[in-house]
Amino acid sequence: MEKEHAQQLQEAIKAVESINVKKFYFVACGGSMALLQPAQYIFDREIEVSAAIYSSNEFIHRSPKMLGKDTVVILCSHSGNTPETVKAAEFAREKGAVTIAFSNVLDSPLLKAAEYSITYDYGKDTIASEGNNGMLYRLVFGILNSLAPQDKHARALKCVNNLQKVYDRNKSNTAAAACEFGKKYKREKLIYTLGSGEYFGVAYSFTSCLLMEMLWINSNAIHSGEYFHGPFEITDYDVPFIIIKGLGETRPLDERAHAFCQKFSEKIVVIDAATFDMEGIDEDLRGYFGCLVAGVVLRQYADQLAEHTGHPLSVRRYMWKMDY
Amino acid sequence: MEKEHAQQLQEAIKAVESINVKKFYFVACGGSMALLQPAQYIFDREIEVSAAIYSSNEFIHRSPKMLGKDTVVILCSHSGNTPETVKAAEFAREKGAVTIAFSNVLDSPLLKAAEYSITYDYGKDTIASEGNNGMLYRLVFGILNSLAPQDKHARALKCVNNLQKVYDRNKSNTAAAACEFGKKYKREKLIYTLGSGEYFGVAYSFTSCLLMEMLWINSNAIHSGEYFHGPFEITDYDVPFIIIKGLGETRPLDERAHAFCQKFSEKIVVIDAATFDMEGIDEDLRGYFGCLVAGVVLRQYADQLAEHTGHPLSVRRYMWKMDY
Repeated sequence: MEKEHAQQLQEAIKAVESINVKKFYFVACGGSMALLQPAQYIFDREIEVSAAIYSSNEFIHRSPKMLGKDTVVILCSHSGNTPETVKAAEFAREKGAVTIAFSNVLDSPLLKAAEYSITYDYGKDTIASEGNNGMLYRLVFGILNSLAPQDKHARALKCVNNLQKVYDRNKSNTAAAACEFGKKYKREKLIYTLGSGEYFGVAYSFTSCLLMEMLWINSNAIHSGEYFHGPFEITDYDVPFIIIKGLGETRPLDERAHAFCQKFSEKIVVIDAATFDMEGIDEDLRGYFGCLVAGVVLRQYADQLAEHTGHPLSVRRYMWKMDY
Repeated sequence: MEKEHAQQLQEAIKAVESINVKKFYFVACGGSMALLQPAQYIFDREIEVSAAIYSSNEFIHRSPKMLGKDTVVILCSHSGNTPETVKAAEFAREKGAVTIAFSNVLDSPLLKAAEYSITYDYGKDTIASEGNNGMLYRLVFGILNSLAPQDKHARALKCVNNLQKVYDRNKSNTAAAACEFGKKYKREKLIYTLGSGEYFGVAYSFTSCLLMEMLWINSNAIHSGEYFHGPFEITDYDVPFIIIKGLGETRPLDERAHAFCQKFSEKIVVIDAATFDMEGIDEDLRGYFGCLVAGVVLRQYADQLAEHTGHPLSVRRYMWKMDY
């Protein structure tokens, strides 16, 4: 698969090079949209071309006027079967945009609908550089290195190769804390998450997919900066918050939220990327890569909540059971 | 004030005309950010220039690479005193962007920091066309009518003049339902909101500012399309949802969420813009204006929740009481 992956990426990047890109759209639903969120952040930071992110159905119905032949639409669906995302690919392609789609499944409707296909590996034997985040970052920094070549973007492509080792070390380093979390928070009916910058996607997917969808625990992913403009009034001694402190430019927002929140809540769980072992990732790229590690670490926290609540992450009451 | 308002708008629009705009940024915090959200939607729909929206501190720390002399930054703070937004105006101005700021207070730090000031009226005697939403729409359609002149944009400017009457009629039409809501939901500790398109800002501000900030009720503003990609698994007979059904292009998303949610929750409150009396607003503009009416209607719902819980909307435990 590795050779095929490299070729898929090369073709997609060549397609982006072949046009005068006016705008990038990242389009997906739920966890896949959250997966794409850091890419939008990185484009904002690194390149003078607009990048926006939309939930698939919002994208289709909103039908942004700029969508057209000088735009690139990057989509993702794990199964390649998400109807809204398949439709978004068809819609964007009809409008003349370059469409690049990520999926775990090669022959899926999404990869048939989009012009350029990128498959990624999944499962416990997957090497991170060939997994969903690894492949996304290879596309992102491949595009950046092509449109705005610089040493940093080339180095980022090399760092992707070290991701698996970084994941393994940090999973091992945080396993005990995750277990502690599962034990301590198993009775909670509501847990808020906080994050900002390229780490907001991780907060969003933890809230939407892990807490609400898989564990039936009420939640809201609050932006660390927005926390002070309304949501912070909900803070009290017994209100739990998972605060993700990033390593990137918006870290001061997370630090401020943490500093305030800990004065009034006795139930704070901090996922601090500054405590991650980031060896193998260049210093100036640790912000961008730390959010991927935060996702892997938080997955363990969800696993332990499942373990201690006796509510497996695979349980659903609506999904897979009915049409909607 | 009306003459002054018109002149402020004219100067701001002239400033936008004087450059070759590459991107619009809408920048504010909390309720003011939510206020700007429909403007971003309208720009997406009506013009081939990118528009993005950011919370002020995210905007500053993220420091988008495109921010510069060919960009326009539109900010808002009611008091004109929100430190992050004042700083965002200074930051954007240093970068060479055209800065246009909205506030209720003429001599406020925000209006001093931005190059172009727009004041709006506030309070019970305010006429809607001179209030925050009215002034914002006058700027938005003024810019559109200048950059992409068309009959629709010119007509929108006239419709703003009818907003007050539309507000008054719909407030009166929904007063009883709001009271009913306050009575029925006064014991709830958690209420979700749902919305999409240009109506998402209303859901967001109801969640962040009215429920969480003012009433200390847990909440999350869930995007109607995203609801099916995680959050919907939280739905149960006793989980309350306020579903905002818009009148714009994304209404099918809200309808789908409503259709599903009502099968499993017995606590659904629907704010359906299709039931609003929109006389005075042109048919093809009712989507854009309906979200403003939804905001006014929902305010009554919050007032009634305050009335029946005995928790006035003016109560705070942190804001105004300490530094943070």
